[in-house]
Amino acid sequence: TTLLQRIAQSPSFRSFIIGVIVFAGVLVGVETSPAMVQQHGSLLKALDHLVLGIFIAEIVVKVGAEGRQPWRYFKDPWNVFDFLVVAACFLPMSAQYVTVLRLARLLRVLRLVHVLPKLQLLVSALLKSIPSMAYVTMLLGLLFYVYGVAGTFLFAGNDPVHFGTLALSLLTLFRVVTLEGWTELLYTQMYGCDRFGYADTPALCTQPSAMPVVAVVFFCTFILLGTMIILNLFIGVIMNALQE
Amino acid sequence: TTLLQRIAQSPSFRSFIIGVIVFAGVLVGVETSPAMVQQHGSLLKALDHLVLGIFIAEIVVKVGAEGRQPWRYFKDPWNVFDFLVVAACFLPMSAQYVTVLRLARLLRVLRLVHVLPKLQLLVSALLKSIPSMAYVTMLLGLLFYVYGVAGTFLFAGNDPVHFGTLALSLLTLFRVVTLEGWTELLYTQMYGCDRFGYADTPALCTQPSAMPVVAVVFFCTFILLGTMIILNLFIGVIMNALQE
Amino acid sequence: TTLLQRIAQSPSFRSFIIGVIVFAGVLVGVETSPAMVQQHGSLLKALDHLVLGIFIAEIVVKVGAEGRQPWRYFKDPWNVFDFLVVAACFLPMSAQYVTVLRLARLLRVLRLVHVLPKLQLLVSALLKSIPSMAYVTMLLGLLFYVYGVAGTFLFAGNDPVHFGTLALSLLTLFRVVTLEGWTELLYTQMYGCDRFGYADTPALCTQPSAMPVVAVVFFCTFILLGTMIILNLFIGVIMNALQE
Amino acid sequence: TTLLQRIAQSPSFRSFIIGVIVFAGVLVGVETSPAMVQQHGSLLKALDHLVLGIFIAEIVVKVGAEGRQPWRYFKDPWNVFDFLVVAACFLPMSAQYVTVLRLARLLRVLRLVHVLPKLQLLVSALLKSIPSMAYVTMLLGLLFYVYGVAGTFLFAGNDPVHFGTLALSLLTLFRVVTLEGWTELLYTQMYGCDRFGYADTPALCTQPSAMPVVAVVFFCTFILLGTMIILNLFIGVIMNALQE
Ligand code: NA
Ligand code: NA
Repeated sequence: TTLLQRIAQSPSFRSFIIGVIVFAGVLVGVETSPAMVQQHGSLLKALDHLVLGIFIAEIVVKVGAEGRQPWRYFKDPWNVFDFLVVAACFLPMSAQYVTVLRLARLLRVLRLVHVLPKLQLLVSALLKSIPSMAYVTMLLGLLFYVYGVAGTFLFAGNDPVHFGTLALSLLTLFRVVTLEGWTELLYTQMYGCDRFGYADTPALCTQPSAMPVVAVVFFCTFILLGTMIILNLFIGVIMNALQE
Repeated sequence: TTLLQRIAQSPSFRSFIIGVIVFAGVLVGVETSPAMVQQHGSLLKALDHLVLGIFIAEIVVKVGAEGRQPWRYFKDPWNVFDFLVVAACFLPMSAQYVTVLRLARLLRVLRLVHVLPKLQLLVSALLKSIPSMAYVTMLLGLLFYVYGVAGTFLFAGNDPVHFGTLALSLLTLFRVVTLEGWTELLYTQMYGCDRFGYADTPALCTQPSAMPVVAVVFFCTFILLGTMIILNLFIGVIMNALQE
Repeated sequence: TTLLQRIAQSPSFRSFIIGVIVFAGVLVGVETSPAMVQQHGSLLKALDHLVLGIFIAEIVVKVGAEGRQPWRYFKDPWNVFDFLVVAACFLPMSAQYVTVLRLARLLRVLRLVHVLPKLQLLVSALLKSIPSMAYVTMLLGLLFYVYGVAGTFLFAGNDPVHFGTLALSLLTLFRVVTLEGWTELLYTQMYGCDRFGYADTPALCTQPSAMPVVAVVFFCTFILLGTMIILNLFIGVIMNALQE
Repeated sequence: TTLLQRIAQSPSFRSFIIGVIVFAGVLVGVETSPAMVQQHGSLLKALDHLVLGIFIAEIVVKVGAEGRQPWRYFKDPWNVFDFLVVAACFLPMSAQYVTVLRLARLLRVLRLVHVLPKLQLLVSALLKSIPSMAYVTMLLGLLFYVYGVAGTFLFAGNDPVHFGTLALSLLTLFRVVTLEGWTELLYTQMYGCDRFGYADTPALCTQPSAMPVVAVVFFCTFILLGTMIILNLFIGVIMNALQE
C-alpha cells in the first residue's frame, strides 16, 4: 500500500474530514446572518477557502490512492457527488449568482451522508425502496392528472387563483392531499367566488358560479382516493421493510 | 390464430396503444389552456378525432380477435370500460354540455390502468381490499350519521352555515375528521355565533347560543372515535396485506 | 322451544327488526328538517310511536323467550342497552327537553351494532383493545396535565382565550396535538398578544408579554412528545391485532 | 431486614406515596386558579408544605433502608429524579421566580412514572427506542439544516417574519412538516410579500420578490422528503417493536 492509500484509509483522516464537513456546514449557517457577514466577511471568506482547499486535497489523496487507475475513484457515485460539490465552486459566476454559489456550498453538508457509513446505508435503503413504490406513485400521478384536468375545466372560471391553469390545479391538489385549508377551496366552489373566498380580491372573481354538488363530489372523492392510495404506498414500504 | 388475433396479442400493438393513450392524455391536458384552444383549435380537434379513430379500430380488432364469439370481448369488465369511454364521445350532446364531453375524453387516460398489467394488478388489489373494509366503513358511517343528526339538532340554530341541514352537517363532520379548521367550528358553538365566526356575515346568525360543554364533548369525542375507527380501518388493510 | 323462542330466533324476525331500526334511523334523520316536521308532523309522530311499539314488542318477545328466568335477558349488556334506549322515551320530560328526547331516539340507530353480528364483533374487538392502551393513555394524560398546568401558569396572562384556565389549556393542547392552527398560538406567545392574535379583541389582551424561547420550547416539545406517545399507542394497537 | 426496609417495601407505603403524588398534582392544578389562590392561599401553602414534608420523609426512609450504604439510593436514576424534584423546592429564589418554583412543583407529578411499575416500563421502552432512531433523526436534522439555510438565503428578504434568520427558518420548517398553514408561506413566495401575506404589516415587506418556481420546488420537495423520512422513522420504530 502506498502512502496515499494509508492516508485515505486511516480513521484519523476520516475523522478529520468529518470535522471539516461539519465546520463547513456551520460556516454556511453563520453566513445566513448579514451582520456576521458584514463584520467578519474576510475571515469567513478565508475559512471558506481553507475548507475548499482541504476538500481538493482530499480528492487528490483519494484519486492518488487508486494508484495507476485514478478513474476508479469515479466509479463510486458518492465520490462523483463529492467531486461535483467541489467543482461547483469553480464555475464562472457573476456577482448576481451569489445565491447559486451559496447553495452549492450548502450542498457540501450532504457529504456527511458519504462519510458516515450508517447514514449512507440508510439513504441507500431509502433510494432502493423507490422502485417498489413506482406503480403506486404512477397511480397517484394518474389520480392527480385526471383530477387536475377536471378541476381546471370545472373550476378555472370560479377560482382562477387556485384552478386557473393545469399547473396551478396540480399544486392545489397537492395542498388538498395534505388537508391544508381544503374547505376554503370547497366553499369557494360551493357558494361561488362572489360570496366566498374573493372578498379581498373581487377583481379576480370574473365568472362566479356556485356548484355545490360537483364541488363536494370532487373534493371528497379526491381526498378519499388520494389518502387510500397514499396509505397503500405506506403499506408497500412497510411490507418491503418486513421482507428485509 | 387469425390475423386479428395476432395483431391483438402483438407487443408492438400494445405499445402503440399505450402511446396513443398517453398522447390522448396530453391532448386533453393541452386543452385546459384557452390560449392553446383558440390558436390551435382545429389541429387539436383533428388530433382528437384521430385518437378516437384509433380507439375504435382497437375495439374492432379486439372484438374481431374473439372470432365467432364477439360477445366474449365484453366479459372482461376493463373492456366494457374501454368501450364506454369511446361510446361516451358519440352521445348526442348540445354545446352547453361541452364540459361533460371533455370529462368523458379525460376518462380515456384511465385506460392506462388496463393496458399496464402491473397497474391493473394494483388497482384490482385495491378494489379487492374494499369488502374487507365493509364493516369498519359501516361503523364509520353509523358514527357520522349519529353525530350528523345530533349536530343538526344541537347546532343548526347557532351555526346554520355548517350545521343547517343534515347534508351540511355530514360534510362538516368530514371536515372535522380531516382535522381542518375544526376549532373554528368548536369556538362558534362555545362562544355563540354572535361572538365568534359570523363577524363577516352577522345576518346569518339569527339564533346565537353558547354551548361550551356540549360543544367540547361533541367535537372531542367525535375526533377521538373517528380517528380510532379510521386507525382500525388502516390496521385491517395492513393485516389483509400481511396475509397475502 | 316455546312459540316466543321460535319467534326470537327466526331469521325473518331479525331481518324485520333490522328493517325497523334502519327505518327509525331514517325517521330521526327526516326530523332534522324543520319543513318536514311542520308539514308531516303528525305522520312522523305516528310512525315514531309505531317504531316504539315494535321495539317494546321485541323486548317482550325476547324476555318471554327466556321462559321462567326472564332476568336472564338482562345478562347480555347489549340487551340492557336496547332496554335503556326504549325506556329513555318514557322519561317524564317537559317540552324544553325536546332535544334530549330526540337524542335518545337517535341512539336507537346504535342498536344496529347489536343486531348485525359482524358489527357487534368489530365493536367488541374495539372495546377489548382499550385496556391494552390503558398505560399509554395514562402517560398521554400525564403529558397533557403537566403541559396544561405549565401552560396556564406561563401563558394565562398573555393569551387568556386559549390558556386562561386549566380546562381551556387542556382543550388548547388537544387542538395543538391535532396540529390545527398551532402556530397562531405559538406566535401569540412569541410576539405578545399586543402584536399578534388579539387584533380583533384588544380588550382581552390585558397583560401582553413576549416569550419567544419559552413558547418555542413549550409547543415544539409538546408536539414531539405528544405525537411520539400517540405513535406508540398506534403501534400497541397494531401489535395487539397481530397477536390475534 | 430493618424497620425502614420493611416500610420502604410495604405495599401500603407505596400506595400512600402514590396517593400523595396524585394529591400534589391536584394541588398544583388548583393553584392555576387565581381565585382559589386568593381565597384559600394559606391552606394551599400548608398542604404544599405537608406534601413536601412527606416527600422528604420518603427519601429519608428509602436512603435509610439502604443501611450502611446510603449512596446506593442514588444508583437508581429515578431516585435521583425524585431527589432533584424535592431539592428544587429549597433553591433560594426571589419572588419574581415564583413561576419557576411552580414548574418545579409541577414536575412532582412525573414521579408517578417511578411509582407505577408498568408506566416506568413503558417510559423505559420509549427511552430505549431513541438510539434506534438516531440515524434517521440525524438525516431529518440534515434535511432541516440544508432547507433552513437555503430558505434563509432565498426567502429572508421577501418573508422576514418566517425566514428572516436561520432559527426562524428552522421553526418555519417544523411548521411546514406539520402541514400547518404551509400554503400561506408558499403563496407569499409565489406572489411576493407585496401581494400576499403582508397586507396587515406592509412595513415589514421591504424587499418584495415573486419566486413561483423556486418556492413550489422548495416547499413540495421539502414536504415529500420530510414525510418520507418521518415515515421511515415510524417504520423503524414498528420494526423495533416487532423484534421484541
Ligand atoms: Na390544518
Ligand atoms: Na392538518
